[in-house]
Amino acid sequence: MKLTILFGGASFEHEISIVSAITLKQKLSGFDLSFIFCDQDHQFYLVDASKMKALTFSKGEYKKMPKLSLSLGAFVQKGLFSSRDHGGMFLNLIHGADGEDGSIAALLDFFSIKYIGPRIDASVFSYDKRYTKWLCNARGVKCLKHEELSVKEHNNIKIPYPLIVKPSRLGSSIGVSIVKEESELDYALDSAFEFDSSVIVEPFLQSVKEYNLAGFWANGKINFSIVEEPHKEEFLDFEKKYMDFSRSEQVLKADISKDLESRLKANFEKIYKNLFEGALIRCDFFVVDGEVYLNEINPIPGSMANYLFEDFKDSLELLANSLPHAKRAKINYEYIHSISKAKGK
Amino acid sequence: MKLTILFGGASFEHEISIVSAITLKQKLSGFDLSFIFCDQDHQFYLVDASKMKALTFSKGEYKKMPKLSLSLGAFVQKGLFSSRDHGGMFLNLIHGADGEDGSIAALLDFFSIKYIGPRIDASVFSYDKRYTKWLCNARGVKCLKHEELSVKEHNNIKIPYPLIVKPSRLGSSIGVSIVKEESELDYALDSAFEFDSSVIVEPFLQSVKEYNLAGFWANGKINFSIVEEPHKEEFLDFEKKYMDFSRSEQVLKADISKDLESRLKANFEKIYKNLFEGALIRCDFFVVDGEVYLNEINPIPGSMANYLFEDFKDSLELLANSLPHAKRAKINYEYIHSISKAKGK
Repeated sequence: MKLTILFGGASFEHEISIVSAITLKQKLSGFDLSFIFCDQDHQFYLVDASKMKALTFSKGEYKKMPKLSLSLGAFVQKGLFSSRDHGGMFLNLIHGADGEDGSIAALLDFFSIKYIGPRIDASVFSYDKRYTKWLCNARGVKCLKHEELSVKEHNNIKIPYPLIVKPSRLGSSIGVSIVKEESELDYALDSAFEFDSSVIVEPFLQSVKEYNLAGFWANGKINFSIVEEPHKEEFLDFEKKYMDFSRSEQVLKADISKDLESRLKANFEKIYKNLFEGALIRCDFFVVDGEVYLNEINPIPGSMANYLFEDFKDSLELLANSLPHAKRAKINYEYIHSISKAKGK
Repeated sequence: MKLTILFGGASFEHEISIVSAITLKQKLSGFDLSFIFCDQDHQFYLVDASKMKALTFSKGEYKKMPKLSLSLGAFVQKGLFSSRDHGGMFLNLIHGADGEDGSIAALLDFFSIKYIGPRIDASVFSYDKRYTKWLCNARGVKCLKHEELSVKEHNNIKIPYPLIVKPSRLGSSIGVSIVKEESELDYALDSAFEFDSSVIVEPFLQSVKEYNLAGFWANGKINFSIVEEPHKEEFLDFEKKYMDFSRSEQVLKADISKDLESRLKANFEKIYKNLFEGALIRCDFFVVDGEVYLNEINPIPGSMANYLFEDFKDSLELLANSLPHAKRAKINYEYIHSISKAKGK
């Protein structure tokens, strides 16, 4: 399959997007891959596959590569006398801001570029943890209770310790802290507010069971990955997650009952349907007292959660052939014509 | 004030956006106005103010005008040997798809162009009537009960007649029908599904009181318009709304109690805060048995609801000086550097 991987972005997760892209290059050997890098200034560059190394970006060498601009149906490389189109199928692999907040989705949709990834609405409901709660409530999926803070308001937090403090709009554990007692709260709030003007607080559940499940809509059904029980310490901090984004080895299926597996899948489906079509997402669940809770939605999981799929290449190809079609209005100026007529013009 | 009005769009409301732009041209005399038209193929054109007439668009004459492309900080008009930037402050006046679904917001944000209008999140919650209900529920604002349909499912509708059938994602009464009895339902559903794959059904309230209120955040508070009680027949159909978008005469304040006025404002504020900053929106409310219900949010109201403001020009200028700033991540390649160091490269 011919596929262009779009990565980078003006995001705190910029570097893990680079790691993700390098991992997918290895994982998708046999595909006809191209790479387009979005730098922190929102300039696009065409990166030769042989240069797909971390240092190409950290040393700024990408700036010598061909610059691209967005145009209808393609990214365009403009020469002095001619221009070259880079169209076809895209994979949005920009984690965090730009990629997961709806911006890249809107750009690609607006310019009629085909892509794998969450659409605008899906992005908004997964990127902001507050809105993920609203989605859960509306669709009958359990989630942890939470409180929202927009400034450092210590006294108002009613959730008992230990608690977990998170910026509302970041993934990859950036700015996230576990707070065991009040003396640690100040620092945790400072860290979170460094990344977002909105912060959420949730109870921190010790020794909770955690399960990850990925999937996508194609051929009239959701195609699920295996269920994974992630190995984890207290929780993954950014550096550990950073390494986590380069995972490419198939993992083992979690040892869970058929009943739990089907309840995880049912919850995934409630979240996914009529919203995430076009995307391969990973839902991270908690199981507390036998009940399934959604923890978070990763609409562009690290290295596309390739390690959860037995047939990752086939899955991606299947998804590429099942993308939603945006309905676009046809404009015939009927009203202006009829008014002009009435006026005798 | 120097201001560029962006209008048109690949939307069923394309023509009313043209009407809105022409109305604002008259209403904003004294401003240094420019006009950029987005046609149904998503091409941008710079339209001379003297050509701001409906026929320029319906007859396709705009195609002879300078084409523009999006670039960092500005729309660019490219000549053979030079190019000209059109930057400064923009007003997103594209009603419906593109303008109100988050696409234009994402484009302008991505390219760092300053604009008056709803941001991506705000667009998603106001464009889709289903998500407006979720917003209301989360923020303690009453709204009418509703049912969602994704295919023609007659038997499942539990709301008693009369009811109102609406496409989930369109404004301006397009595809909306009042259904008094079952025999009319088929046609109403057909009309609605013509415009959207998702349809909502609500009770139709006869002789309900309706009030419109506009406002925007600036100088640390919401600046409200007067409250209007719209004159209406059963409800405004598209042709009547079309004419409604060209309104420019200041209307009279609704004759309501101080108490009701302050409750309308309190509900407006619950909807607006931490979501609609940067936009001048109009909320349309119902009052049923003394209780305030949100009917819908117009994040880009027809001709910017100019007729509701006593000092429309000052209001727009105030808003232009109070736009939210997007926080953008600074990327220093800290992790890649530390990993490269550890590897001895």
